[in-house]
Amino acid sequence: MDKVRIIEVKESIFADNNKEADRLRAELKEEKTFLLNLMSSPGSGKTTVLMRTIEALKEQLKIGVMEADIDSAVDAEKIATTGVKSIQLHTGGMCHLDAAMTEQGLKELGTRDLDLVVLENVGNLVCPAEFDTGAVKNAMILSVPEGHDKPLKYPLIFTVCDVLIINKIDVLPYFDFDLDKVKEYAHRRNPNLKIFPVSAKTGEGMEAWTQWLKEQVNAWNQTV
Amino acid sequence: MDKVRIIEVKESIFADNNKEADRLRAELKEEKTFLLNLMSSPGSGKTTVLMRTIEALKEQLKIGVMEADIDSAVDAEKIATTGVKSIQLHTGGMCHLDAAMTEQGLKELGTRDLDLVVLENVGNLVCPAEFDTGAVKNAMILSVPEGHDKPLKYPLIFTVCDVLIINKIDVLPYFDFDLDKVKEYAHRRNPNLKIFPVSAKTGEGMEAWTQWLKEQVNAWNQTV
Repeated sequence: MDKVRIIEVKESIFADNNKEADRLRAELKEEKTFLLNLMSSPGSGKTTVLMRTIEALKEQLKIGVMEADIDSAVDAEKIATTGVKSIQLHTGGMCHLDAAMTEQGLKELGTRDLDLVVLENVGNLVCPAEFDTGAVKNAMILSVPEGHDKPLKYPLIFTVCDVLIINKIDVLPYFDFDLDKVKEYAHRRNPNLKIFPVSAKTGEGMEAWTQWLKEQVNAWNQTV
Repeated sequence: MDKVRIIEVKESIFADNNKEADRLRAELKEEKTFLLNLMSSPGSGKTTVLMRTIEALKEQLKIGVMEADIDSAVDAEKIATTGVKSIQLHTGGMCHLDAAMTEQGLKELGTRDLDLVVLENVGNLVCPAEFDTGAVKNAMILSVPEGHDKPLKYPLIFTVCDVLIINKIDVLPYFDFDLDKVKEYAHRRNPNLKIFPVSAKTGEGMEAWTQWLKEQVNAWNQTV
């Protein structure tokens, strides 16, 4: 395995992040590259969901991954074992990525030959939700051990996401987690939120999610 | 049950948060009130640990609780069932509390008759670690489902905390979580970190933690 490349990304000098994000999205459209922004708490299983997603789609789509963390390269090293192009972004202590930071990462990754780039954002339910990264779609993962009350306590992230993946459903018997309640609370925040209950560990439910993602990528890249 | 009071706290107008935090700590010392800042990811079980802690100590110490969240009052409502004084702080979208926000909360709570106040900070491993709240001690909770690699990825919070509570050890058999590794990684960040593995659900390990906390409170308040 090659050593993972670590890129230090710097906060934007641009006052208007939304404008930068729109510009980046337009460039990605031009290049036929779909950018997915994946957000969650620390430890919800982002990297495991992503590895399963890559396994399911890597024969059909050319995939790249940017792992954002404050420190370490453990996630990018795991992703590299799947054979897809991956880099580690370090945020210098920052709790989120903005569009300019994302763009620095995309330049280092090289997107011209990629259909799908996944940005694994810093593990945090608050700050990443406040910044448009330039992604085409925003997805978040909530895991069963975190509890079903999270849409009540972290409203913004549920509002800005297109997709909610509920991970670790294999441990539902051991936790007081109400799947109906979390759906109800999440849809109160965002009636259009697509919800996929999955277990990245056992593979349960993963097909519905990867199928949806593939359709979104193909629609954006106009390859079908 | 009385309706829980919700306080909107505003970000500090003071440039030097550390100075404000030191001033607040000195006032608390004067009043013989110990402030504990409790931090963690969303869903690590902060509120459940806190409820168990209150049950263990409420006959010996006069306790107050400030629950900080971006939205909702679900945690303060739970805490109120234990019979201790509790208020809900709303941060207006902010991902952390600084010393001035903490002080606003303490004033609303009223600390003169309290031995121990627990601030349950916003669920986040990044931002709360950057701001001294004026607390006497900082504690964090990491739960088993989050994984043992967190000290590698979120270095600052492990560095600034005095205590690491490892919660949900009752589900260790269902997760790939290495207790020895997490201790090793955490002590790399902070050799003085006290570590208490517990299950707030079953009560396992809670006595060592509550005993330690009681000793700290009594030492600060010089009541023994």
